[in-house]
Amino acid sequence: MPTDYLIKPDPLDSRLSAAVTGMDQTGAPVETRVVTEKALTLYLNSQEVVTMMTIGDHPDLLAVGYLKNQNMLQPGDTITGIDYDDDLEVVVVRTERETNYEEKLKKKVRTSGCAQGTVFGDVMDGFEDMALPKAELRTSWLYELTKNINTTPSLYLEAGAIHGCVLCKGPDPLVYMEDVGRHNAVDKIAGWMALNDVPADDKIFYTTGRLTSEMVIKTVMMGIPILVSRSGFTAWGVDLARKAGLTLIGRARGKRFLALSGSDRITFDMDPSDADDEPKRNRRKGSEAAE
Amino acid sequence: MPTDYLIKPDPLDSRLSAAVTGMDQTGAPVETRVVTEKALTLYLNSQEVVTMMTIGDHPDLLAVGYLKNQNMLQPGDTITGIDYDDDLEVVVVRTERETNYEEKLKKKVRTSGCAQGTVFGDVMDGFEDMALPKAELRTSWLYELTKNINTTPSLYLEAGAIHGCVLCKGPDPLVYMEDVGRHNAVDKIAGWMALNDVPADDKIFYTTGRLTSEMVIKTVMMGIPILVSRSGFTAWGVDLARKAGLTLIGRARGKRFLALSGSDRITFDMDPSDADDEPKRNRRKGSEAAE
Repeated sequence: MPTDYLIKPDPLDSRLSAAVTGMDQTGAPVETRVVTEKALTLYLNSQEVVTMMTIGDHPDLLAVGYLKNQNMLQPGDTITGIDYDDDLEVVVVRTERETNYEEKLKKKVRTSGCAQGTVFGDVMDGFEDMALPKAELRTSWLYELTKNINTTPSLYLEAGAIHGCVLCKGPDPLVYMEDVGRHNAVDKIAGWMALNDVPADDKIFYTTGRLTSEMVIKTVMMGIPILVSRSGFTAWGVDLARKAGLTLIGRARGKRFLALSGSDRITFDMDPSDADDEPKRNRRKGSEAAE
Repeated sequence: MPTDYLIKPDPLDSRLSAAVTGMDQTGAPVETRVVTEKALTLYLNSQEVVTMMTIGDHPDLLAVGYLKNQNMLQPGDTITGIDYDDDLEVVVVRTERETNYEEKLKKKVRTSGCAQGTVFGDVMDGFEDMALPKAELRTSWLYELTKNINTTPSLYLEAGAIHGCVLCKGPDPLVYMEDVGRHNAVDKIAGWMALNDVPADDKIFYTTGRLTSEMVIKTVMMGIPILVSRSGFTAWGVDLARKAGLTLIGRARGKRFLALSGSDRITFDMDPSDADDEPKRNRRKGSEAAE
């Protein structure tokens, strides 16, 4: 069991899931837990940016990460305050720099994953300028990481129907975020990195979701050289990963994985037959579909 | 095997997936197939509405369904033309009525599923006025439907990492759409229903994805009284389904399912122990995560 998470899911937090009663296939009443979703409206200074549906556990990190990943918070920006109002369901990020994204907010792209609202033209400009650092991924780390992550108590294991993203370093998972929308889990990690000045070049990003174009773009924009998923690939995700030189690993379960880009960063230091199979009880339950 | 689909996936269509080579856990080269994504920019008359990422198989249905589900095409509207340009990656829907949604397009809500860009305020107005019809769901139909759908050749079974939605009537699946984003698969079905004047009150909607608020809202707006998924629930999805009187069934796999709303429409006409278990080879492969 990992002992070294800096942030991890709190599946016992009663605000994040709710008990509901229903009927099973025999007509018998049953009780189950389902994850909650709340609206959260984000302002950057005086401008309303977006309303997000989130489990609501880290509104400050979500707000900052969203703005970073949209290029609305820029590298030199100083954040002067983050105000969150639980009752109003509003979070306001204030910066020293005056901001106005009215034109940007008009332009919407509906991506294949869960990042509509991504202002794609802008993001792609940045994407093409990114150079990812040299880095190493030992297969022994990969096996240790996926095993640790899959056995960490989570809302997923408690209630299903939720996405997880984990920021890792070497064999250690550091920050594990969950949310109803995977884009929120990514943005919460980006927010944590931004607010804590965490370097990206020695990190590995793990996601439960598919390796879509959106996921690849976000990882590259965060400067992280290695992206790992238990799910599959899309063609455009693979294409962008190859253009950016991102190490892209999918279908990572038990002994198996598949690298479709950047396999030069992989060090095969462990015999796959020595890795554990994925324990059946940890397989994702209420939700097996794509992404 | 079902023989009665009106539209079903064409996993052999070479435009919809691509062969890519990579490296497996032993360092050996492997070839796999991944689904493709293309940009498609939608215009309603002279106004640019949104750019979608789609597998690209039914741009006309996707366009009309998107506009219907966004309330931009209204019940009395006459469509005078749908022009699709493959090279420009543009689809234009023309209506008799002059349209202008500039104000609406400014307002974005980023939902938990895959429907950012949904103009949520407007959609909720309609939602509260909807009254879903009486209908029946026999458990024998449910078992037959899920078995048929799971054994239908699909891009999912071919390449993974894709969502499926199926419009059904009684025990028969009618229209089976897949797309990288589940919102697109839903919209293609809505477009097909709109262009073919298909009544909704005797239909069952099946999805591979999670039963989020977005999915519930779209199903209710389409007037379909029963929504079934192999995936799990979110709390807000359950809440909205109960408000709308939608029959909401999740985790439908093999013998098992769970109804969290509208179970009065269910007729338990089959002993679950007589239903088949889900065959292991049909379990979703490259992609088990939430939604």
